Amino acid sequence: MVSQTKRPRIVIIGAGFAGIRAARRLSRAGAEIVIIDRNNYHTFVPLLYQVATGFISPETVAYPVRNWVRRIPHARFLLAEIQRLDLERQQVIADGLSLDYDYLLLATGSQTRFLGVPGAPEHTFALRTLDDAIALRHQILWSLEQAVRTGDARYLVFVIVGGGPTGVELAGALQELLVGPFHRDYPELDLSQARILLVQSGDRLLPSFPDPLGGYTLRQLRQRGIDVRLQTRVAAVQPNAVELSDGTQLAAATVIWTAGVLADKPELSRPDDWDGAARGVAGHQKVVVEPTLQLARYPNVYATGDVAHVQQNGEPLFGVAPEALQQGDAAADNIRRQLRGQSPQPFDYFDKGRAAIIARHAGVAYLLSKLKLSGPLAWLLWLGIHLYYLPGLANRSALLTSWLRDYFFRDRAYRQRLTPPSATANRAAVRPGSEA
Amino acid sequence: MVSQTKRPRIVIIGAGFAGIRAARRLSRAGAEIVIIDRNNYHTFVPLLYQVATGFISPETVAYPVRNWVRRIPHARFLLAEIQRLDLERQQVIADGLSLDYDYLLLATGSQTRFLGVPGAPEHTFALRTLDDAIALRHQILWSLEQAVRTGDARYLVFVIVGGGPTGVELAGALQELLVGPFHRDYPELDLSQARILLVQSGDRLLPSFPDPLGGYTLRQLRQRGIDVRLQTRVAAVQPNAVELSDGTQLAAATVIWTAGVLADKPELSRPDDWDGAARGVAGHQKVVVEPTLQLARYPNVYATGDVAHVQQNGEPLFGVAPEALQQGDAAADNIRRQLRGQSPQPFDYFDKGRAAIIARHAGVAYLLSKLKLSGPLAWLLWLGIHLYYLPGLANRSALLTSWLRDYFFRDRAYRQRLTPPSATANRAAVRPGSEA
Repeated sequence: MVSQTKRPRIVIIGAGFAGIRAARRLSRAGAEIVIIDRNNYHTFVPLLYQVATGFISPETVAYPVRNWVRRIPHARFLLAEIQRLDLERQQVIADGLSLDYDYLLLATGSQTRFLGVPGAPEHTFALRTLDDAIALRHQILWSLEQAVRTGDARYLVFVIVGGGPTGVELAGALQELLVGPFHRDYPELDLSQARILLVQSGDRLLPSFPDPLGGYTLRQLRQRGIDVRLQTRVAAVQPNAVELSDGTQLAAATVIWTAGVLADKPELSRPDDWDGAARGVAGHQKVVVEPTLQLARYPNVYATGDVAHVQQNGEPLFGVAPEALQQGDAAADNIRRQLRGQSPQPFDYFDKGRAAIIARHAGVAYLLSKLKLSGPLAWLLWLGIHLYYLPGLANRSALLTSWLRDYFFRDRAYRQRLTPPSATANRAAVRPGSEA
Repeated sequence: MVSQTKRPRIVIIGAGFAGIRAARRLSRAGAEIVIIDRNNYHTFVPLLYQVATGFISPETVAYPVRNWVRRIPHARFLLAEIQRLDLERQQVIADGLSLDYDYLLLATGSQTRFLGVPGAPEHTFALRTLDDAIALRHQILWSLEQAVRTGDARYLVFVIVGGGPTGVELAGALQELLVGPFHRDYPELDLSQARILLVQSGDRLLPSFPDPLGGYTLRQLRQRGIDVRLQTRVAAVQPNAVELSDGTQLAAATVIWTAGVLADKPELSRPDDWDGAARGVAGHQKVVVEPTLQLARYPNVYATGDVAHVQQNGEPLFGVAPEALQQGDAAADNIRRQLRGQSPQPFDYFDKGRAAIIARHAGVAYLLSKLKLSGPLAWLLWLGIHLYYLPGLANRSALLTSWLRDYFFRDRAYRQRLTPPSATANRAAVRPGSEA
């Protein structure tokens, strides 16, 4: 209920791309805004692989949320873990606190889905949160040191599961790390023994890009010595070993899981309020929304970004950052319409395009649903886009400095094996029983 | 035994100030050099308090050891934890590996000593390692967020134990953080309720500086609202509370322990090889060395830096970075003399002086054992010294950028509450039974 005497309260859960964009867009709505997140920073997810491979410091991709909040009138930030939503009573329960809302924007993102592969949740590294990236950096550096100490080649084998942008970008960055900085750092190792395996279940890489770009990516990676296995799955993961669907057994100390996505939905007081809809859709368990991004049964509740199942022309969207940004804007605009007594409008995604980086001078881009680019121009475009979108002037300047340093000196500054984040403070990567 | 056919092997344990300096000084000795540390980076300890208070990123004070090692001929790095030394057999046992040496340089530094105060090991934060600094930054940010959520004032009370440079510098930096960036970040908090207590057992601050400088420091801190308690000890620490020796009970979520130092000695195969000497000296349990920095019974074993008890004119040295640097040089020179069949020379510390920073425009310095400086000039001197000594050009540039940003905008860039390092990966802050 929007009370006449008090400002209406909009609660935004999640300080990712969609949540932050919506909060900023709502700054002149005259409403009270409460942003809730379990971290006090916004994670610039597309660059996590650069944290894991020593390009940049973790803080470069982590922008303090309060830097934004303090510039939005009537906005508050709450560092909390969501326990439960009560959509009927319009309440959020977070760390024991109960918070009423007039409008709710759900922007909780996604978590890793291990697709039921035995051993995957326990023995693989994910790359979805900043903690993941720091832990993976630790693991890569630890593996090299272990290789020095033991002479065991399994420490030089890296298996990357998933041939989407994250898997491709990580494979390229890791290969450059091995032949450049690590070659200088570890003269006692024979790094020609090092192997990077990229395992992709589909018949081409980068399935969200048109066909020739996946082929270009495949050739580029193979030219650089990366062992790309198409139409192959991981059947099981054990400590220091992995088994592929074609029967291959491989000794590998590091297995990185970039393959599956699962909506990171909060618990509900009445679980069937998600309309049971999510369950069927490609196993992602996303929240199905109306074209206006509202829940069908609760028109004052919106879902955006990776947690939402949004269709465009009958096709589900991919779950990339630009979609989340535009959905954040659209949901904010619809809430403002509702505040003014107008009707929410359907969300219409304008696909400017997408880009992925493979290695130095090699990238792919697909622009305005028609232009296909590959090579140095796409690489430069990727760099420009990410530099532009990274929040914070100081972070942008740190990013540019790191890139120039890598480009001219083939040096990565962040090869410190910091102690990995504590497991207790991490949320579970997957909740028991939440697999489809 | 120095073999004629092989290069003599010098093992250096610890990649701190003394160890790294010695390794670099030995680069033209023609010997094989092995540097062992539990981290793959060198920690620039004097700036840890700036990591904890959000000035700089953790990586700025952590320089990868292999950056040096790769430039030293015949040098190797081993990432390992020392289990045991066998001084008679000239062996180092590290992570199950056994390594023979011809010369050994012990530069393992110090750990926190809790002086037998009940609750201190469990409920206080130390500031001795990079993990400590990241954990303390997390705690400070967590406390402010807890204060927002609960309204409980204990989350705004910070007790700092120890009035040496670390305690003073941390108190000043924390106060500036509260009145500047946190004042902007947390408009919902009444930060006039925030309290910083600095507890010092002696009758003045900075006991390693001549008297008037301690008095100046005291006035500066009190002017800034810091509650300095001289001739006061901490009697006990409980979760969220602390009891002082004068009977004061205080609700405080954060207690930071900078008071005690204990030599971080490896275990020995024959424990009495430390000559039983360390035990008596001010409880620090340091390794007593000859004036040449050699162990009396083992002339091929040197101890330097915080782990060593070195006297100068009958007085023990303080345990500051310049001493460790000069001792690293001296031990390296003595090993080179031994390799050439010459006699080691006594170490002679040249005290250029010391400096401490209190806050913006306020520092103290004591130069060449006569010149006493306080105020803006000493502050500038401190900045210049630390900028000059920080390893790595990129780190130095990042440090300068952060300082300028803080100076002109009163902004601290590193307010991300990253998950603290895992406890299992931390070494125990104090070993059971190792208190004097």
